[in-house]
Amino acid sequence: MAGTIAFAITAVLAVAPKRIDLFGVVVLGLITAVGGGTLRDLILDLPIFWIEDQSYLWVAIGASVAAFAAQGFFNKRSIFAGMLLLDGLGAALFAIQAVDKVWALDFGRPLVPIILGVVTAIGGGLIRDVLAGRPTLLMGRELYAIPVLFGCILYTVLLAYLPDEHTVTAIAAVAFIFALRAAAIRWNLREPDWLLTGPRQVDPEKPEA
Amino acid sequence: MAGTIAFAITAVLAVAPKRIDLFGVVVLGLITAVGGGTLRDLILDLPIFWIEDQSYLWVAIGASVAAFAAQGFFNKRSIFAGMLLLDGLGAALFAIQAVDKVWALDFGRPLVPIILGVVTAIGGGLIRDVLAGRPTLLMGRELYAIPVLFGCILYTVLLAYLPDEHTVTAIAAVAFIFALRAAAIRWNLREPDWLLTGPRQVDPEKPEA
Amino acid sequence: MAGTIAFAITAVLAVAPKRIDLFGVVVLGLITAVGGGTLRDLILDLPIFWIEDQSYLWVAIGASVAAFAAQGFFNKRSIFAGMLLLDGLGAALFAIQAVDKVWALDFGRPLVPIILGVVTAIGGGLIRDVLAGRPTLLMGRELYAIPVLFGCILYTVLLAYLPDEHTVTAIAAVAFIFALRAAAIRWNLREPDWLLTGPRQVDPEKPEA
Repeated sequence: MAGTIAFAITAVLAVAPKRIDLFGVVVLGLITAVGGGTLRDLILDLPIFWIEDQSYLWVAIGASVAAFAAQGFFNKRSIFAGMLLLDGLGAALFAIQAVDKVWALDFGRPLVPIILGVVTAIGGGLIRDVLAGRPTLLMGRELYAIPVLFGCILYTVLLAYLPDEHTVTAIAAVAFIFALRAAAIRWNLREPDWLLTGPRQVDPEKPEA
Repeated sequence: MAGTIAFAITAVLAVAPKRIDLFGVVVLGLITAVGGGTLRDLILDLPIFWIEDQSYLWVAIGASVAAFAAQGFFNKRSIFAGMLLLDGLGAALFAIQAVDKVWALDFGRPLVPIILGVVTAIGGGLIRDVLAGRPTLLMGRELYAIPVLFGCILYTVLLAYLPDEHTVTAIAAVAFIFALRAAAIRWNLREPDWLLTGPRQVDPEKPEA
Repeated sequence: MAGTIAFAITAVLAVAPKRIDLFGVVVLGLITAVGGGTLRDLILDLPIFWIEDQSYLWVAIGASVAAFAAQGFFNKRSIFAGMLLLDGLGAALFAIQAVDKVWALDFGRPLVPIILGVVTAIGGGLIRDVLAGRPTLLMGRELYAIPVLFGCILYTVLLAYLPDEHTVTAIAAVAFIFALRAAAIRWNLREPDWLLTGPRQVDPEKPEA
């Protein structure tokens, strides 16, 4: 739930500079909050979680409206930093919960739980960026998806080798993702050049545009 | 059916300035016409409506080819205005029909019928704009989705309080959406500034770019 | 399988100029390779093929990493041309296999098998381009989707009139698509102007930008 709120609020703040209306704000907030889980449930052919429990929808709509009404407040430096952290925690919780769900259903171990964990965490944001005409996070160098991926892999390994320590390992994996993400935010970490495609020999004197 | 035709034709006219080929025209016309209903059926885990009844596909393909062949005709001022109105009527019919279907299935009342009504009406257009590299309607100030949203809310309230007047209330809700949309087209209504995100203090002397 | 590999590799080469990271490369390679089949299975409400058989995922991930690591190699003229051909063969195989599957299930003949054949062949590439912020192939004049469409129509006709020659006709349809695509690559064929929307009277002295 905290993740749902944080996803909706950071979505609104992300698209706000584009001057979109309250309707667009709520749609994009909602999609960011529930889009990843919707893709997961569609792929697994399970009932979509928000049809079963509408409270996710109410919370995401409420958070989007609140973020719209109080943009000034949420854009304050300290509040925004807190929201980014909450968003990172949300991504961690969404991912690990999804890995757990898929693992328990015994679908395509080990790859499918990992992939659907990542999809659940970043899918909503990808759809939001595409609809809002923003570059998706796949195109950037922000360390967002990589911590999620590593956490999902770690949790899958732990589930395989320590199946009885379910709760402990889930908390450890969430903490792992959150710590990586918090460190990336705190020290503004970016990926090294050799992890990128394209020409690598860049003159260090002339920064790229 | 009229809605399917209007959706396909307005889709072709919308993307025509981009110089795309007949294949792209038909694909985009088809997606605009059946995309929203496809999303609805996927989310509800029902058989996709156009697999059950292919006539929707034939009509959408035919309308797209016709719009391609007779672009000059459909782009005439009076014909285009009529097409816009027909498109508004199509959106109204698609939305109310979807609310009806989801309500009858008793899925997640009251929020899920409203959301899927809106998705059915605007989903196809969103996918079209994303594939064609156009800004989606979420980013504009056109009054298109808001009338649909209000109509779906109205119809849901009527279904809850007047469950026996099914047909009358459906017609009323379609008429309500269509009237709002027609008024928006006729007087070129735009959303007021306070409904938008972003900086609000704009010098009235200097219009925005 | 060859198609999966070729799709992943050509996807990586297509997005490489944008300087994206290894994570984005693998995600986009994977989506290109399995995205079309995923859409097909979602629409048919069948279990997603890569949940049943993870080897597709491993192969697509491996091919994406290989393409990332050896961009220089794959970008060599001769290798790249071979990859384009392999990609065309992959599209042909994906499409005909999908038509076959949908036809055997007796879903919405004759239109649905054709549509899902095309979706399977080009759907992954469309999602990739949208996520990577590239114009989709619907907007270009490359002869890619049209051979696939013609091949799917041909195969559907053959299935209807020569139902017992199943294997022979499938091979013929794959060969047909591949031959058209190879000819388009070899002679750099583009679609004629009259197949495009928009203004047609272009001064032949002033080429378009």
